Order: sequence, then structure tokens, then C-alpha cells
Amino acid sequence: MNILVLGAKGFIGSHVVDRLTNTEHFVKAFFRSGDISNKNCTVIKGDFSDHAKLAEALVDVDLVVHCISSTVPSSSELDPVADIQSNLVNTLELLSLMQKMKVPKLIYLSSGGTVYGNPQSSPVDEEHPLSPISCYGVVKVAIEKFLNISDSIWGVSSLILRPSNVFGEGQSHSGAQGIISTLLKNSIQERTTSIFGDGESIRDYLYVKDLADLIAVCVDFKKSSTYNAGCGVGMSVNQIIDVVKDISPAEVRVNYTPKRSFDVKEVVLDISKVTEDFDWSPYRDFKASVNAQYVQLREVLTGSSAR
Amino acid sequence: MNILVLGAKGFIGSHVVDRLTNTEHFVKAFFRSGDISNKNCTVIKGDFSDHAKLAEALVDVDLVVHCISSTVPSSSELDPVADIQSNLVNTLELLSLMQKMKVPKLIYLSSGGTVYGNPQSSPVDEEHPLSPISCYGVVKVAIEKFLNISDSIWGVSSLILRPSNVFGEGQSHSGAQGIISTLLKNSIQERTTSIFGDGESIRDYLYVKDLADLIAVCVDFKKSSTYNAGCGVGMSVNQIIDVVKDISPAEVRVNYTPKRSFDVKEVVLDISKVTEDFDWSPYRDFKASVNAQYVQLREVLTGSSAR
Repeated sequence: MNILVLGAKGFIGSHVVDRLTNTEHFVKAFFRSGDISNKNCTVIKGDFSDHAKLAEALVDVDLVVHCISSTVPSSSELDPVADIQSNLVNTLELLSLMQKMKVPKLIYLSSGGTVYGNPQSSPVDEEHPLSPISCYGVVKVAIEKFLNISDSIWGVSSLILRPSNVFGEGQSHSGAQGIISTLLKNSIQERTTSIFGDGESIRDYLYVKDLADLIAVCVDFKKSSTYNAGCGVGMSVNQIIDVVKDISPAEVRVNYTPKRSFDVKEVVLDISKVTEDFDWSPYRDFKASVNAQYVQLREVLTGSSAR
Repeated sequence: MNILVLGAKGFIGSHVVDRLTNTEHFVKAFFRSGDISNKNCTVIKGDFSDHAKLAEALVDVDLVVHCISSTVPSSSELDPVADIQSNLVNTLELLSLMQKMKVPKLIYLSSGGTVYGNPQSSPVDEEHPLSPISCYGVVKVAIEKFLNISDSIWGVSSLILRPSNVFGEGQSHSGAQGIISTLLKNSIQERTTSIFGDGESIRDYLYVKDLADLIAVCVDFKKSSTYNAGCGVGMSVNQIIDVVKDISPAEVRVNYTPKRSFDVKEVVLDISKVTEDFDWSPYRDFKASVNAQYVQLREVLTGSSAR
């Protein structure tokens, strides 16, 4: 199968490329600029909004894995219109191009942590009402709703994955992409981490290599559907802090600050549907995975500071 | 109260202006171009995308009644991106302007006929999952989801009304705005009407003056909420055809053609929530209302043809 990975240089996309190039499939890696270390794929550089480049990338492709997200919850809140333009509109243009280029299948990464809002049940399954409380979540829901009709409108079958909080090597350490990388970075740099709220908010954390494994088994999906993609277990921020304290030789300092209006209190994903339908479960040990991210991040940050 | 009606020259908006100028409220009518017959309101002409003009219109306003929709289901299907730009993005810009101008309340007209998709129950209540099968419905759902968080994001309380199939005097007779006006126009012009499907699809029809009455009682709404706005009773297209046959002195000819993929089979709205929470029910006789539309349309078309 010829698989086009969009956002192939991003945190999740790069792991997807690494995983898929370890299969019998041929991989095209689409990203904006720079280089990637993986040499077992065809590279096509272009912006997601560049239709000509995207059309070129779609030639002879059987499946698109769409890992592009130009926003995080906090940036969407500041400019929801930009979120719509860069993510929703460009995804519709992609569907339209896929129709023209006769590309039949798409895997899309939605957001298990935001589309449900504050869930009425825990763990939350895929049938739960979609009541996002953040602009980021609303845009994800809007994209999902279009993908729910992509078969009839564009002739494209869509598999929607709703990952929980993904972490692992390569995650941005700018502070925007999750508490684990922020804690690890600050512990390496001996800085204090600001925690929104009392640290008791519960999340479901998924290691990026487990997610890449899931995508690798999903490439053969037969019909449009939607799946939670998490570990199925909740952890509080304070529990995460304890794990990081165990790993880090330096002191881990935190500072509790008021919670943000768009953060939900608890989201744990019910993953029974995905584990039943696919030969997959997230099997890697949490602490070992966080440690792998720590080791990689320390190398990156030490390298940076040594320059 | 100072009320700004957006889309005041449109089919629904013009009735809303007429109804609200018959109350103690002050009405500002915002529309693109031309004139309106109602002289009891302040007129501000501008495009919905013109922020400066919209900001001018929002001065000292207590409530916005947003009746603008630049698309119908068939046009949205052809160009969903245009639907997003003109309706979703402009509505977010409106919310942002309302926040800046400290306008606290919005009434938005969504779509009871499309947001539910093919309902699992009949009549369908507001808690039913939103599973639109048309691009038009998806954009309406996206706007609704943003309005669900408008209190926390923009400090704007939103009342969402989901009207069923609205009909009445002033409805477009171009063929895009509903079966009743199309049947009436074709009967006056002695043309055959194409019916998508077998005529057995069931809809809930709401007379525009009943809807305007509802909006007039809703202007005092206290907190954000969502309401179906229909008559609560289903009628098939074939039943509508029979009513038009009763009214029209000319022969009513129809031609059954294949159904469209984005048309749902049956939607009847459960209106118990709106009738319980507001002093309103749709009380006007259906046949008399269709006849009023017929009489007005005949005048318009005869006038047109005499030119």
C-alpha cells in the first residue's frame, strides 16, 4: 500500500513514519520544511494549504494518515478563526483533492481529550455526546462531523482516532504540548513548573509508540468509523509529578496556579472498541516510556546548551 | 431593549423585524443592500463580513437576532468551504465584536431539519445526537458548538433555535428554499414540480409568523439554551401537494425524481421544551398559512410577469 503521512516531521507524524517504514508499505512523508532522519520514505515538502503540492503528493496514494494540527488548545482559544482556516478548511480541501485524485481512505487524528468536554461517565466511550468546552475541541468536532459524511460527499472512507494525551520522544518542550514534556524539561533545566489547578485533574496518557503501532494496524481498515485511542486508565497530574520525581535526579518543583476555563476535569477513554476491532493494545510500561522521553530530551537540551 | 436583527431583509429576518417593531423594543435592521418597507426601525446597510459596519450596528445593542444564512443545503454541498467562510467564520467574528462592544445576548437560528441527520426517534428532542448527513447541517452544528461555549469564551449568552421547515410570505421562490414555495410558484406558472424521492419523506413545517412570534417572546431569555422550533407534527410532501391542490385553481403537476443523498427521510421536532419554557405555541392554521403565501406570491409573480 502507498501511504502518505501528512505532518511527517511533527511529533506524532515522525513516529508514524518510523513505524510504517518498518512494514511492507511504501511511505511518502509530507512536511513543510527542513529534513527528517528516516531515509526509507519519499519526501515531499510543502505547506498543507498548497493544493498543487498536495495533489502531487497524492499521486498513486492508497491511504492518507493526517497528523497535521497547526494548533493546541491554548492557541485555538486565542484565535479560533485561524484554527478553522488552517485545520478545518484545509482538511476539506484535502478531501476534495482526494476525491479528484481517487485516494479512497483517510486516517484522521482527532482529540479524545477535548471532543467530549466534561464527560458524564468515566471511562468515556465513543457514543458519549460531543460537548467540547474549548474552541480546539469544537474545531475537532467540526472536522469529525465532516468526516462522518466523507463517504457520501467525497467518496473517501475515514477512520477517526481520538487519541488521549500523547507523550514520548520528540514531543515539543515549549510548554504547549503536554504536562509530561513540560515537567521533564523543567526538571532538566531546574525550573519550576506551573500547574493549572490543584493537580488532581485526571487524564489518560498514551505513549506515542503505542499510538504509532495502532495506526500501523489501522491502515487496513475496511469502513469509516471512530475509535478512542488511549491507555484506558486515568492518572492525575500529581501522580505524573511523582513519576517524574522518581526518574529525575534533580529536584522537581511545581507551582499550582488557577485552572483554565477550557480545561476539563477528567477524561479517561474507554478503549474496548479499538482493542476488540483491532489487534492492538497499549502495552508499554508508563514509567519506562516517560524515562525514554526524559533521556532523549536531556540529550536534546544538553546539546542545545552546549552549543 | 435595543435589538439588532441581522439579515433583516431576508425571508425570516423581515418577519422578525415586522414582529419586533410591534413591541416596546427598538429595532435596528442590518442588511446588505436595497430597502425594506418597515419604517419603524433604524436601517444599517452592510455586509456580514464588514467588521467596521457591524461594529457600528452593535453600538448600544442589548440583543442580536442572527437570521443570516448565506447558504441552503444544496449550495453548501457544492462548496462547503464557502459555507464555512460566510457563516461559521463570520459568526465567530460577530461573537468577538459582541464581546468588544459588550453586547450580552444572541439569538441564533440553526436548523432543526438538518442537525439531527436521520433521527433515531420521532419526534426528535433536543438531546438527540447531532449526526448531520449534509455539509449544511455540519456547519450549523459547528456554529452551535461554538455558541455552546460563547458564555465562557466571549461573554455572550446564546439562545439557539432549531426551526423546522419554515414557510410563508416572502420565501424565495427560486426553488432553493423549500417545497411549499416551489409548488406554489409552479402552480401559478403552470409548471411541473420535481419532487426528490417518492414524496413520502416527512417534515415538520413552521409558518414564519409563528416563528417570528417565538423570537419575540425569546428576546427576554435568561440563559444560554437550545430549543427546537417547529409545529411538532409531521407531514409528507404528498400531503403538502394535496393542500396546494386544494388552494390552487390551476392544475398542480409533479414529477418524482431520485432522492438526494443529503436529504433525510423524516424529521419531526419535539417542541415540548420550547412550549413549556416560553409562552408560545404555533397556533396558525396550516392551510390558511399556505394560502396566505400563495396569495402574496401570485401578486409578486403576476407583477413580475406584467413588467
